[in-house]
Amino acid sequence: MPSKPSNAGKPLTYADSGVDIEAGDTMVGMIQGLMRRTHGPRVIDRPGGFAGLVRLDYNEKLFRRNYKEPVLVACTDGVGTKVKLASQLGVYDTVGIDCVAMCVNDMIVEGAEPLMFLDYLAVNRLDPQVGTAIVKGVADGCRLAGCALIGGETAEMPDVYSEGDFDIAGFAVGVVELDRAIDTSRVEAGDVVIGLPSSGVHSNGFSLVRKIVSSAGLDLNKVYTELDAQQTLGEVLLTPTRIYTRAIVRLLRRYTVKKVVSGMAHITGGGLPGNVCRALPNDLDAVLDSSKWTSPPVFAFLQKHGRIERGEMLNVFNMGIGYVLIVRPSFANSVMKHLTRLREDPILIGEIVKGGSGVVRVE
Amino acid sequence: MPSKPSNAGKPLTYADSGVDIEAGDTMVGMIQGLMRRTHGPRVIDRPGGFAGLVRLDYNEKLFRRNYKEPVLVACTDGVGTKVKLASQLGVYDTVGIDCVAMCVNDMIVEGAEPLMFLDYLAVNRLDPQVGTAIVKGVADGCRLAGCALIGGETAEMPDVYSEGDFDIAGFAVGVVELDRAIDTSRVEAGDVVIGLPSSGVHSNGFSLVRKIVSSAGLDLNKVYTELDAQQTLGEVLLTPTRIYTRAIVRLLRRYTVKKVVSGMAHITGGGLPGNVCRALPNDLDAVLDSSKWTSPPVFAFLQKHGRIERGEMLNVFNMGIGYVLIVRPSFANSVMKHLTRLREDPILIGEIVKGGSGVVRVE
Repeated sequence: MPSKPSNAGKPLTYADSGVDIEAGDTMVGMIQGLMRRTHGPRVIDRPGGFAGLVRLDYNEKLFRRNYKEPVLVACTDGVGTKVKLASQLGVYDTVGIDCVAMCVNDMIVEGAEPLMFLDYLAVNRLDPQVGTAIVKGVADGCRLAGCALIGGETAEMPDVYSEGDFDIAGFAVGVVELDRAIDTSRVEAGDVVIGLPSSGVHSNGFSLVRKIVSSAGLDLNKVYTELDAQQTLGEVLLTPTRIYTRAIVRLLRRYTVKKVVSGMAHITGGGLPGNVCRALPNDLDAVLDSSKWTSPPVFAFLQKHGRIERGEMLNVFNMGIGYVLIVRPSFANSVMKHLTRLREDPILIGEIVKGGSGVVRVE
Repeated sequence: MPSKPSNAGKPLTYADSGVDIEAGDTMVGMIQGLMRRTHGPRVIDRPGGFAGLVRLDYNEKLFRRNYKEPVLVACTDGVGTKVKLASQLGVYDTVGIDCVAMCVNDMIVEGAEPLMFLDYLAVNRLDPQVGTAIVKGVADGCRLAGCALIGGETAEMPDVYSEGDFDIAGFAVGVVELDRAIDTSRVEAGDVVIGLPSSGVHSNGFSLVRKIVSSAGLDLNKVYTELDAQQTLGEVLLTPTRIYTRAIVRLLRRYTVKKVVSGMAHITGGGLPGNVCRALPNDLDAVLDSSKWTSPPVFAFLQKHGRIERGEMLNVFNMGIGYVLIVRPSFANSVMKHLTRLREDPILIGEIVKGGSGVVRVE
């Protein structure tokens, strides 16, 4: 009798549908310590609460300053198909750093400082060890970014995600004093463009990266000497996205009166042309000189094996510059010096010119 | 020569990897109006910006009040495998409401009012029409919740999501004045429990729901009269999650001096027992009388066709009560009256008793 329901006589339970509540509870226990490590005095501890709570102002001297006109700044992002590479290689503890980086690097562009972070993790089947490794990466990223991991959601969705697959999205909230928020209308012709190096591909363009790997028959577990003397291709590709938060937040605090930084950009999907233009008024262009910086070998490697045209590379990848500041020329040296003290390697990569329509030329 | 890379001679482009940048741009254009409809005077308009900006305080009389000790409250959630049902039925414009509901209903439990929302949408292939329908649901949910949709991310991930599949996660941020935050340690024996009706299954337990549908051979496109006179099973199951924000926020504003609401709970995964206990101190129990409310027919329908035991139903589904308030007994009538004026149908469903360990008994 093929039409007979298969469960005849047997009561269904939630566990029958593939959702393992116990695994979820195990993981919650394992990640609580990881979350606590990211908490500062702003976080209000509420075990079992429905939401995460973070103090903004405080009446006592606990914080350096209170806000007069606080503006909340919020971002969300994922890491694209970098998750696919992570699960393929069984390396789970770094995509969380990428996820934090993608969100907080967007946030600091507005002049804000990150306060808190939440993650959404969706998996095929919850392995508490794997889930905890992923959240450990998120917590590591939060510590690098100086923000508190105050909540998250782990969803077990066996019918949406294939075996071994997962996805992660992050959400960051920060604050900026309204009159210190970056205002791109202040960018002027003559301003200089300072770039901060990326650590590699970061977290954009991984569908193309994976296409190159498969179509050129590359081996993720092999060491290609043209790429790196010790790391495998997979390791090079999984290098976590750099987090620019501490350097940028501290730099902006240095200039409390003068507004020397007129614009910033986080170089994500769309590359330098697609992101620097977001920091420009319509009547100004940016001219960048790519001979000023050394592109990490991973980009030449991908370009060669994918036979990708240079213009396409520039429009998809960061090509070695992960973050850009637009600065008044008379303060360029001062900003470069501060950034160097903050352990960055700032490079003067171009300038702002009068022009057409917010175009970015990379020469 | 099977070992020869298949792309020999042909340069790869980003589009070759299955990512359609144009579809993304089309969708961004389509959703901008939807987002604007949710914006109030707090939102700072920054087209093309890297992050969403929302004013918290303001120097003028634009807002009813400024905060003395503002505490930020943040939540994240998805809608589980309700997304699978939505894509199966081709109904895309309501899961966004569910996504907002799951987040903001958690947030108001802390006494907070929602300010802003961001969504993360991941798809196999971006169909701008489908993507826009999903975000329309998110925007509708934000309007119902009284919060601004200030950002989001749409990720096209052909290798993680199967054809037609997608996932959605939401992030909500709100604010509560510290001394008005709900403090569950204030719950006392003798407090009464008021329930607000759910609209049905809401957004939990859908892996089990779908398992029942498949194993009992149910037809999602059929009208089952025991369930509803007109709606199909699929329509009944996709009914959006109720959003309790406006009623709860307004209710709490009514009592500016006395703290008549001692605890609240959003009834999600774990049902009444698993969520009401989160609002209880360890030495108190809640006793709920299920004869006080009428469970929507969908629960009896699912229980029958899945041959599910009553205890399992209670631990997975809300059984008709989507939100719970714990209230001082002398204010029960006043709270019920206010909630009725706010177009809710509050039901007295139980009370708090001295007891073991934060247990919830449903009798």
